[in-house]
Amino acid sequence: MAIVKKYGDVNVEPVMDGVGMRMVIGPEDGAPHFNMRIFDIEPGASTPHHSHWWEHETFVIEGEGIVRTDQGDVSLKAGHAVFMPGNEVHQFVNTGESVLKMMCLVPQKWLEDTTGKPTI
Amino acid sequence: MAIVKKYGDVNVEPVMDGVGMRMVIGPEDGAPHFNMRIFDIEPGASTPHHSHWWEHETFVIEGEGIVRTDQGDVSLKAGHAVFMPGNEVHQFVNTGESVLKMMCLVPQKWLEDTTGKPTI
Repeated sequence: MAIVKKYGDVNVEPVMDGVGMRMVIGPEDGAPHFNMRIFDIEPGASTPHHSHWWEHETFVIEGEGIVRTDQGDVSLKAGHAVFMPGNEVHQFVNTGESVLKMMCLVPQKWLEDTTGKPTI
Repeated sequence: MAIVKKYGDVNVEPVMDGVGMRMVIGPEDGAPHFNMRIFDIEPGASTPHHSHWWEHETFVIEGEGIVRTDQGDVSLKAGHAVFMPGNEVHQFVNTGESVLKMMCLVPQKWLEDTTGKPTI
């Protein structure tokens, strides 16, 4: 059954200081393969500087920031998309003066072993 | 390797009258599981009224429209997200006076047989 929602109506779960996450489309909606989350990152706040097996497909809705990548820091603003492959160390940082609103999609965990790639 | 791009810089491919598609993040970028496309739907234009095995995860960036679902027509505007499950007949229609810019994510074809669900 189709589900339509305004993302601002979805509950924000705090995930760390200055960072909240909305699960806009996920397993509870019936999503079988991948999940749409929208993060609010407060000015000065950031996501962890980390890596993991899964990729991100990211899109900036509002605000300004940077993404730390293997190739250095890259500026972000509304309308920028980021493909962050699995196992690359990365971090999203709000360098602006308003909330950085950023969509970040991830595959579901059960897909971990489906790519044939080592999960180092 | 991380890839950052402004979606407006991605080439628009015509897919039918009044509808163009940008492959913002796809297999050519190294995406392993799912693809981010952004559609421009001109005023009065629409996507096909159809169904297929794969789901959509959709997000309206700009403009106004409706989505036709099994439960009827639902209004859409910027900030609305739509989960359209596989095999539900659907159509996106631009009912506004400006271009409807809509992100639409799909799983890659090789995932067709991974859900354990029949592809009727």
